[in-house]
Amino acid sequence: MIETASLVDQHCHGVLRTELGLGTFETRLGAPAAGRSAAGTTLFDTQLGFAVRRWCPPLLGLEPHCPPARYLARRRELGALEAARRLLRATGITTYLVDSGAGEGGEGTDDLAGPEEMASLGAAGAHRIVRLERLAERVADVSGGAGTFLAGLAETVHTEAATAVAFSCASGTGATGGAGGKGETGGTSGTGGTEFAPEPPAPGAVRGAAARWLSGRRAGGALTDPLLVRHLLWTAIATGRPLQLLPDGADPTALTGFAAATAGLGTDLVLLDPYPYHRQAARLSGLFPHVYADLGPALARTGPGAAAVLAQSLETAPFGKLLFSSGARGLPELQVVAVRGFAEAADRVLGGWVAEGAWSAGDARRVAGLIAGGNARRVYGLPPAGG
Amino acid sequence: MIETASLVDQHCHGVLRTELGLGTFETRLGAPAAGRSAAGTTLFDTQLGFAVRRWCPPLLGLEPHCPPARYLARRRELGALEAARRLLRATGITTYLVDSGAGEGGEGTDDLAGPEEMASLGAAGAHRIVRLERLAERVADVSGGAGTFLAGLAETVHTEAATAVAFSCASGTGATGGAGGKGETGGTSGTGGTEFAPEPPAPGAVRGAAARWLSGRRAGGALTDPLLVRHLLWTAIATGRPLQLLPDGADPTALTGFAAATAGLGTDLVLLDPYPYHRQAARLSGLFPHVYADLGPALARTGPGAAAVLAQSLETAPFGKLLFSSGARGLPELQVVAVRGFAEAADRVLGGWVAEGAWSAGDARRVAGLIAGGNARRVYGLPPAGG
Amino acid sequence: MIETASLVDQHCHGVLRTELGLGTFETRLGAPAAGRSAAGTTLFDTQLGFAVRRWCPPLLGLEPHCPPARYLARRRELGALEAARRLLRATGITTYLVDSGAGEGGEGTDDLAGPEEMASLGAAGAHRIVRLERLAERVADVSGGAGTFLAGLAETVHTEAATAVAFSCASGTGATGGAGGKGETGGTSGTGGTEFAPEPPAPGAVRGAAARWLSGRRAGGALTDPLLVRHLLWTAIATGRPLQLLPDGADPTALTGFAAATAGLGTDLVLLDPYPYHRQAARLSGLFPHVYADLGPALARTGPGAAAVLAQSLETAPFGKLLFSSGARGLPELQVVAVRGFAEAADRVLGGWVAEGAWSAGDARRVAGLIAGGNARRVYGLPPAGG
Repeated sequence: MIETASLVDQHCHGVLRTELGLGTFETRLGAPAAGRSAAGTTLFDTQLGFAVRRWCPPLLGLEPHCPPARYLARRRELGALEAARRLLRATGITTYLVDSGAGEGGEGTDDLAGPEEMASLGAAGAHRIVRLERLAERVADVSGGAGTFLAGLAETVHTEAATAVAFSCASGTGATGGAGGKGETGGTSGTGGTEFAPEPPAPGAVRGAAARWLSGRRAGGALTDPLLVRHLLWTAIATGRPLQLLPDGADPTALTGFAAATAGLGTDLVLLDPYPYHRQAARLSGLFPHVYADLGPALARTGPGAAAVLAQSLETAPFGKLLFSSGARGLPELQVVAVRGFAEAADRVLGGWVAEGAWSAGDARRVAGLIAGGNARRVYGLPPAGG
Repeated sequence: MIETASLVDQHCHGVLRTELGLGTFETRLGAPAAGRSAAGTTLFDTQLGFAVRRWCPPLLGLEPHCPPARYLARRRELGALEAARRLLRATGITTYLVDSGAGEGGEGTDDLAGPEEMASLGAAGAHRIVRLERLAERVADVSGGAGTFLAGLAETVHTEAATAVAFSCASGTGATGGAGGKGETGGTSGTGGTEFAPEPPAPGAVRGAAARWLSGRRAGGALTDPLLVRHLLWTAIATGRPLQLLPDGADPTALTGFAAATAGLGTDLVLLDPYPYHRQAARLSGLFPHVYADLGPALARTGPGAAAVLAQSLETAPFGKLLFSSGARGLPELQVVAVRGFAEAADRVLGGWVAEGAWSAGDARRVAGLIAGGNARRVYGLPPAGG
Repeated sequence: MIETASLVDQHCHGVLRTELGLGTFETRLGAPAAGRSAAGTTLFDTQLGFAVRRWCPPLLGLEPHCPPARYLARRRELGALEAARRLLRATGITTYLVDSGAGEGGEGTDDLAGPEEMASLGAAGAHRIVRLERLAERVADVSGGAGTFLAGLAETVHTEAATAVAFSCASGTGATGGAGGKGETGGTSGTGGTEFAPEPPAPGAVRGAAARWLSGRRAGGALTDPLLVRHLLWTAIATGRPLQLLPDGADPTALTGFAAATAGLGTDLVLLDPYPYHRQAARLSGLFPHVYADLGPALARTGPGAAAVLAQSLETAPFGKLLFSSGARGLPELQVVAVRGFAEAADRVLGGWVAEGAWSAGDARRVAGLIAGGNARRVYGLPPAGG
């Protein structure tokens, strides 16, 4: 069996503190921007839904594949926090990197646990990832004009860099920008976005964009201006903290020029959740020393398809450049299925290669450990496993 | 064994009524726009060719994998219609949705069976899908100017909506627009097309485009103007009938904005034959309640590769959003291999998941039934199986 | 076992004549433009690194999976040329098509073996592929102005066509143009390049571009001007020699218009190394009689993932349109792992299909032979195997 203990969940959001009914739980199984299921269908009829029903009921004392209503009843009986405690502690995750993107600004006000509470619930370590768009919106809420906004932004980014483990940005490459609603992404620029133009924007243009945005903005209004996002990206890059980018369904090959422009600056780029372009992300991680690829929620969302997704990610990525994460948001069940999906896929894929003589057993154990947490500990400067 | 009886072929064209020689049969195995094979090669040397030789000879009393010439001789001996009868009745398809796109207007005048004859040959039900481009060309043939054309178009679309089961459109996203000839697609705009701009075109612009098209057109001339196609799409959407879109080799992620703009209008979009972007189509079907993904001719054309294609389509699509079809045109053999490819792939993929405990057996049977026909019956308002 | 003897390596570069240390060998395992590995990682931790350690040590008298340092020590003990001799002669490659792209002009001056030396080292045949950009740079080095340059270019292309087996071009579609350094590609235009506009550029525009390029150029300066590259492509097409195009990570679907425009001219296009868009390249090879798809270095670089890559390439490509190559450059180890990867993948994939009854055994042997060399011998006009 491949060793995947001591996992680092290198990108997730907090779990919901509130109780969930069947319908609200189901909605949480969909993509963040997807909203309700089509009439006559249910989001429990997905690989993710089936995987939740496979792996989670036994952790709460029920049979695998029990009906959703029964699982939800048991979950409410325990209470959301006790259920989260049992589920998270069954995962083997020892460190959570928790994105602050949800629960603030334009993305709604879900009652999500923060890093400290995730650590407590999961009996694990936790660190904070700062979502750049939310940070800019907070600064805008207390700024008078473009000058104070931009000065405040620069100062806040650098202050946050002292304690946050990474920055994240969900704008710019998103292909689902127009999907509407309270989704993961605030961007509307689609795949032709200019956020990733390969050089910082000119100061005068930044000032102009800031003035336009602030003048038309009410408190809490979301940042979507491509030029300001671009300015934010380059401001974050100057701190040296790893920068997590969410392609949101777009081909990350579009980031090639940005990757070339940021090579050698000392800041790592992490391509979050690149599925269905995980091969492209893996390839980029092999082209640029500072580019990393997240395995992400695809391992949870694809159920038994995770083995194929993992195998494809391993085709051309250097094994030191792949990072496990759950990408979970709201439901601790998502961490459970991400971990089980990853462990089962690693066992099948890497174990299969050992069995056929393609890999040595020692290499397989070592590579599994790198992806499970070793790479993340190196990239984010976390203490070693067991340390 | 997974249950795939009572199939709905949710997108096909009629079978050819004429006898075929070895060369004309071979050409029909290629992509619609592909034309002849390269010198020194044959289209029988494809997964589709091998699959036809595997599955069809036994249905006409020959050995599997017999030489093509022998199969064609036996087929002519029976006659095209008797061969079609035997082949179609061996498929288990109970309903054909037959696209009127071929055999009219700019796409040539193949002698293809219509829905009634398909029903009779296959001892099944059949319904008509109206190809929007052909409809516009028919209206143009009898219209004097832009005004009468546009009024006639609106009236005809709404009249057809009363009896047709769906509309279809093959323009706009096609990556092979320039492939020439009498192909499936009439579009020439490539992946950068404006047909799927996320709002209806302005009436004045539509009138201008109509006048330009009509003035330069001879009778039967094909509709390829992007703005008129866009107008057609929005006219069809207003009817509430499902709209089938053929990406023709382009990444359907490009339709994200169009999908967002049409969400909530009450009209379903069906992404036809999305291979090799079936993962992207499946993902879109999970992002938008009104978007569906066709499994399409890929299950026929990829032979034993169909299991991998099916598994990938199931990675993130809600199981209520995937639709079986043959995409067949001209050859009843294409329906046979689509059904056998689907049944074998479903058995292997879903059966494998049941065997390893990932899915329950009841879920697997239920999902196979949804994809085989349950989803199509719901989307197109067809009577229930056995009903 | 599937027969893959008598292989044609339809695209490679020469092997390095110089001795390599651990670090320089490791760098050669990366993508050509990738440069050093990230701190804390090594390019031996890749599928390619593992495959080299699996297949090559036994050919030099060591254990599979031995440590890299031990392998390199043994390699130096034998000497680079003797190691190359042993490795190449173990591959079963009987013909090398050697690209002149490396070792000249803007791509650095690696000490690589030419076709004659490859033939001698490998005890095989070898032919020359002429890289168009390098040819244009050589002509520019000895031309006074645009007029003499363009006349010299036309003459040189036609002269080379008499002895070279093909032309190659690495500009235009490259997604990694900005990756910097001495990479495989000289292009900087990204996926939006105009090199593949579907008609030849106007003579006046070509003359203007040539004058601009020459006036700003020092001796040896690389050709990257999109319009001149486009002119080169159409000049080469006029010779009738097969033209190899390197998409370099970009989706070759972008070449659809160019393929349509060059159909019927009598010149074949070969899409080199299309991974991760090998399904798209395979599909194009089925749409256009003159388009071929290279399996390329993906079979070496993906290790045990090669079976999936091969199976996907076989999904829709006519079997007469797929070509084996190593894509190797510098290291004879790359030829070894390409051949072993291909042979093992073909055995597993085609052998599996025979075992399950999808293919006949005779068809499987025949198709393996076509891909291994039969198709290349037909396309490039090489003598038959054993001939």
